[in-house]
Order: sequence, then structure tokens, then C-alpha cells
Amino acid sequence: MNYCNMNIEQLSHEKALVEKKLEGYKKLELDLAMSRGIPNAAMIELTAELFKDIDVYSNRIGLDGTDLGTYNQGLLSGIKEAKILFSELLCINVENIIIGGNSSLNLMFDMFSQLMLHGNCDSDRPWCHEDKLKFLCPVPGYDRHFSICEYMGIEMINIPLGPNGPDMDIVEELAANDSSIKGIWCVPQYSNPTGITYSDETVKRLASMKTAAKDFRIFWDNAYNVHHLFTGTCDSLTNIFDQCTNHGNGNRVYIFTSTSKVSIPGSGISAIGASVENISDILSRMKMQTIGYDKLNMLRHAIAFPGKDAVNEHMKKVADILAPNFNITLEIMENELAGKGIASWSSPGGGYFISFDGLKNTASRIVELCEEHGVKLTPAGAPFPYRKDPDDSNIRIAPTYPSYEEMKTAAGIFTECVKMASLEILIGDKNEQ
Amino acid sequence: MNYCNMNIEQLSHEKALVEKKLEGYKKLELDLAMSRGIPNAAMIELTAELFKDIDVYSNRIGLDGTDLGTYNQGLLSGIKEAKILFSELLCINVENIIIGGNSSLNLMFDMFSQLMLHGNCDSDRPWCHEDKLKFLCPVPGYDRHFSICEYMGIEMINIPLGPNGPDMDIVEELAANDSSIKGIWCVPQYSNPTGITYSDETVKRLASMKTAAKDFRIFWDNAYNVHHLFTGTCDSLTNIFDQCTNHGNGNRVYIFTSTSKVSIPGSGISAIGASVENISDILSRMKMQTIGYDKLNMLRHAIAFPGKDAVNEHMKKVADILAPNFNITLEIMENELAGKGIASWSSPGGGYFISFDGLKNTASRIVELCEEHGVKLTPAGAPFPYRKDPDDSNIRIAPTYPSYEEMKTAAGIFTECVKMASLEILIGDKNEQ
Repeated sequence: MNYCNMNIEQLSHEKALVEKKLEGYKKLELDLAMSRGIPNAAMIELTAELFKDIDVYSNRIGLDGTDLGTYNQGLLSGIKEAKILFSELLCINVENIIIGGNSSLNLMFDMFSQLMLHGNCDSDRPWCHEDKLKFLCPVPGYDRHFSICEYMGIEMINIPLGPNGPDMDIVEELAANDSSIKGIWCVPQYSNPTGITYSDETVKRLASMKTAAKDFRIFWDNAYNVHHLFTGTCDSLTNIFDQCTNHGNGNRVYIFTSTSKVSIPGSGISAIGASVENISDILSRMKMQTIGYDKLNMLRHAIAFPGKDAVNEHMKKVADILAPNFNITLEIMENELAGKGIASWSSPGGGYFISFDGLKNTASRIVELCEEHGVKLTPAGAPFPYRKDPDDSNIRIAPTYPSYEEMKTAAGIFTECVKMASLEILIGDKNEQ
Repeated sequence: MNYCNMNIEQLSHEKALVEKKLEGYKKLELDLAMSRGIPNAAMIELTAELFKDIDVYSNRIGLDGTDLGTYNQGLLSGIKEAKILFSELLCINVENIIIGGNSSLNLMFDMFSQLMLHGNCDSDRPWCHEDKLKFLCPVPGYDRHFSICEYMGIEMINIPLGPNGPDMDIVEELAANDSSIKGIWCVPQYSNPTGITYSDETVKRLASMKTAAKDFRIFWDNAYNVHHLFTGTCDSLTNIFDQCTNHGNGNRVYIFTSTSKVSIPGSGISAIGASVENISDILSRMKMQTIGYDKLNMLRHAIAFPGKDAVNEHMKKVADILAPNFNITLEIMENELAGKGIASWSSPGGGYFISFDGLKNTASRIVELCEEHGVKLTPAGAPFPYRKDPDDSNIRIAPTYPSYEEMKTAAGIFTECVKMASLEILIGDKNEQ
């Protein structure tokens, strides 16, 4: 029965039932981590198996004939075989690619540092010399993106993220009229956390829109480009680099990706895709910063994944491990919460998260209740700039890390906590009336 | 005979002899690289042998019991076993250490970016908001240090580097009276390129001196701390961290080091040593920048080098490979150039370079002549800020990369080119008189 149609007695009765269930869970003294998008043990084992026999110390000669086990001034932008791999994955030419270290986040952060201290090839001055800097942030989004803006002192503007991407009417209006708006954060495929993929129209509008700032940049964090959960229902994403180029805005986009959730998290490789001018900008900084990223680890990845097909084949096995966790979570949410008028949630085709929306002013309380009952969630508000969800209603659920049985229990606890927080609010409202 | 005592006929006769020798070398059509400090093939093979059987994919559990093959929010500053290793190498506590990625240069560059955009714990404002920024640069020094300052827009002041380190009278005078001087670059042991090691007194004066800028920092690039060339004659360096702490200036120094020339160049690990306040400063940026550097590569290194003794044992074998190249170079320089009044050079106990000083205005010409005869040297001026050697007399010789036979030939060509450039200058002078 829909909670919103219940009278105070019915609500109180329901609350007593939920309390009893939660007491039972409390006795289990659980400690389940669902706060971050972390691959689980089975996926790590699968990947470790793929890498453990690759000996890049004995076989170090790269495709270009050089020894990759020493410095090589000519390989600042990465080794050829790794560029070919990412060229296939991003559908972009090898000359438009730089291979990075173990973290695409690091590449994004360093890009911002560069923009702040030097600007880009289309800037009149370093961004730190501008009076005001703003960035468009589709919400809910990835907390670490927003942390970078906050660290750099860039004001963030919330943009509603719908099923087809950010609300482009608002994006176009703001970008066209405010020259202090320097860019937009995007997780275009299996978005973190809502799981949506930007539509063709959204991509085209982002690529073609007018921007008041001529050095406007799209930070295109394509973190989940091969992270499908279910075979046969893969989302596909329009190539933004081609779209930007076709619309005469070739410098507009920086594409980021990594193998963090393909190979070993924290020991993978990353990449940037961008126009030749942007690549040249980035290399002009990188040549001051490093002799180059770890080439043996690039080689290791190129051997483990001799092409796009090998990556997809591996990711199918990964999906087989991850999908049951998503399915059981969605099933329990459906059984426990559907029709109660207190919640909605995403049903992603890939990526790492389920995005949950409860009643207004319940998210923090749900997270608190879950923690009390042994389930650690991402803090409420995390997917928003300044960690501030205006409605306090959104929660990012990360079902990848627990085992299947743990996930089943965690989802059970979560749904009871959702009920409890909702009942508290609804009973409070009734009492106030 | 000393060239400076020769008359024009004697000089011309000598020049004809040198020309003949150089013609002989030209016919060999050589292509010898001596431009950068790059380990040679034998050293890489030695190290590859040490690493090739280490399987960190199957055995991933760290000293603290966590799986190092996944993200771990608690390991931002590096894995315990790697910290213990660098703690032994730098004689500094584990809580004062951060383990970095494959490049200490990258750690230094990122430190500068942070200082520019945020300052440090002792700053009133970000460095980029200061009217004027200056840095002290002992010369000759490491070109990549100077490139970072140039990139950041920091004015560099040359400080003469003597056998005991930078001229401390000048350093103290400048640092005490100019608050725009924010720090000093140091390669304190087996300095790049002169090979000297800072004396106890120099280290103490750096640690205790008054600085007008309260957020003054020493960039202590201890790149060659275990890179002795000859057993029994190792230079030892006073612990600057202890000295700074003892003098109430614990925040003054950032210590950098790496395994770049210990393990595989470009695929090693790096470290920062600093006060707890500095470490906290750095981590406050790093937590925005990355989940952490490559932990499996840290583990790989901790397994290959289970302590300081293992590193020293390995470096003895490395020295056995490198020392003959240094010896033959010095022997040929002694035989060909000593007593001619046209050159002096360093005789380092460790590190990667021999620093050569010719007559005024000969360095660029020597490098040019060498290139014409098949030997590529570091560009003249490179060891100075803005690539400008005021005397055009210094050349950095990097004897590590060629094989022994190649080095012998290269040194032969080099010494003839030195003679030729000197004779050209001396004959020119005579003709002008």
C-alpha cells in the first residue's frame, strides 16, 4: 500500500514492523561496504589471472623497436601499442591520444592545474587570472570531479541530469551568455551515478553549441565505455570528438578513460583523447613534469589486451560477475519499495552504480540508519557540488564490491532503512498537521 | 705543452694534427648518445633479472593485510612496505614519507603546481598571487629543475656551486633579505652534473639560515643517494631533515628520491620525505588528484628490495657496470687534455655525470663539433637557468649509456673536439692581437 495514503495508525503500525526487522539485522553486527565503486574480489582474481604470466622484464621491445625498459625521450605521449588499443576503444586516431599513468582522475586534475596556471591554446590568459570561474555540473554526478573544481576555486553550477543527459536548454543558455563559464563535466556513458548514456542529440548539442568563453572545455570522462552489464542491451555513445570537429569546435573536448575497472584498479593505465592542438598543449606541460608514464605497465596492458575485442571479451566475464549483484539489488528494491510512493531508482545497463531517490529530506537519514545497521553507503549529498543535495533525496548505491550474499543482505537492510526514514518523515508530517 | 704558451705557428701546427684525427673519426660515421643520464643495457638486464619472476598479481596481500590489487582509500600515501624501504634509505620515519609514482620529477612538478595555486602551510597566499617569485639555483645544475621554474614563471638566480655545495655566503645573504626568494634547488649528493656532495657545514647552514620568506622551501632532490661508483670511497650526506627539525625549521625541506636509476628507469617508484605538516599539505592535494599511485609496482619494489642492504648490494653490481665507463673517460681526458691549460673536469665518486669546463666561449662549439663527429652531448648551457651558461664553458658528460668500447671512442672524439674548439679560440685571439 502506498505510504502516502496511510493514516497515522497505519503508518505507526508499519513503522513497528520495520523496526522489528531492523532489530533483527542489528543483531547480525554486519560490516558491509557499499560506499565506493570498487571491483569485488572475484573480478580482481579474474584479471590477476590474465596478468600474472606476462613478463615485460624479459620481453621489453616495443612495436617501434625500442627498449621500453629505459628512458625514452621520444615516448612522452605513451607507447605505440597502448595508443593503438585506446585508439580502437575511443574511435579516435593515435595522434590524438596520450597514454597516462594509473589514474585518469590524475590526468583530469593535472589538466585543471595546467588550465589554472597557463590556460589552453584558446585562452587569453591563465584561468587563475580571471575574475570569476564557473563550471557546469550535471547532477547527480561524480564527487571527485566536483572536488577538483572546489580545490581550484571554481564555482559550480548544478545542471539537472535527465535520461538523455544534462538539460541542454539550460546548458546552452548558460554557456552562450556567461563567459566565466569555462566548461562542463560529463560522464557520458553509464553515468556515475544514474547510469544513463547521453543521447545523440545531447552529444551533438554539446559539440555545436555557442559558448561565450572561447576556451570552453568539455571534460568527457568516459570511465565506463566498455562496462556493459548485460549482453545485447549495450548503450552506444555518439563520438563527441568527431562531432566537435565537424562543428568547427575540435578543441572543445578532452576525453578521458582508463582501465581502472578493466584491469587492476589502481595499477591500470589511462588515456586522454583530444585534438592535435590540445595534445600539443598537454605535452608542453608534460615534458616539464615527467620523462613519461610507466611504459612497462603500458606494455603489460597491450599484451593482456591485444585489441578492443579482447577488452570486450574480458568485460563480458566481468559483467557475469557484477550483473547478479545489480539484479538482486533491483529485485529487492522492486519487492520492498515499489508502489509505496516513497522511492524511485535507476536500472542501469552498465557502469558501477544504481542511483536512488527517496522522499525529500530522507537521504541523510537513510545513510545514517544503514550505517547503524552495518551497511556503509556513500554519504548523502556526495554526488552534488559542495556535497549538498538540495532535496536531500539522492543516494548512490555501489553494488559492485560485496559478494552476492552480502549484497542481498545489504539491499534488505537498505530497503528497510528507506521505509523507516520515510515513515519518520510521513508520521512527523501527520503530527504537524 | 700548455696551449696558452704556444705561438701562432705552434697552435696552427697542433690544429692540423687535431683536424687529421677528427677526419679519421668522421669516416667512422658514428652515432653515440651521451646527452642524458640513461642507464645502459647491461644495467637494465641486471635489474630485469631481479624483477622478472616477481608475481604481484598472485600474491597481492600487503604487510597491513589488505589486497593491494584494488582501490584502497587508506593507502593514499603508499603501501607500508615501500614506506619502510624509503624510511631506511632516507633515514626518516615512515610517517614522514609519501610513496609516489614512477617519477620524482613529477612529484616535484606537482609540488610546484600546488605551491603556485595554494601555497604551503606557512604561506599567507598562493604563490601565484605574489608580485614576484624567485628561486635560488646552484649552477651548474639539473636542467629539468630549471625548466619547472621557467614553466611556473619563477625568476631564477644563479648561485655558484663549489666542492662543498652552493656558495652559502651568497645563499644566506639573498635568502635573509629578499622575501620574494621562495626556495632553492639542491642535488645534495653526487650533484648533477658536478658530482660533489654537500658538506656537513653546507647542510647545517641551509637548515638553520634566516629566510625572509617564511614559506621558503628547499627542494632536496636526493636522486643519487645510493649511486656510489667506487666501493670504499662513498660520500656521505648529513641528514637535512634532522638538521631542519633541530633548528626549528622542520617544514623547510621537501626531500625527493626515486628508484629510477636503481630499478627500471621509467617504471620505478618515487618518494617524498617531509615534516608531518608538509605531508599533510601534500596529501590534502593528492586526495583530490588520485586514489593513489600504483600499489602493485610499490609491492614489486618492496619484494625486489627487502631493505636498504638489498639496494646497496644491487647498486654495487650496478657500479661494477658503470665505473669502467667513468674510468676510461677520465683516463682519456687526463692523457689528452691535462697540462694543456684548456680544461678542467670533475672526478665524481658517484652519480651519473662528469662535469667539464673548457675555455670561455668553447662549450657550444665543442658540442657542435662532437655532433658533427657522431657524438651527441647534452646541449651546452643546459645545466644553467634559461639554458644560458654565462661563460659558455661548461659541458655535462653522461658516460652511463654507451658500452665501454663506445665510451672509449666517444671520449677520444670529445677530447679532440675540445682541443679543436680551444685552438680556434686561441688562434682567433692571436690574430686579433
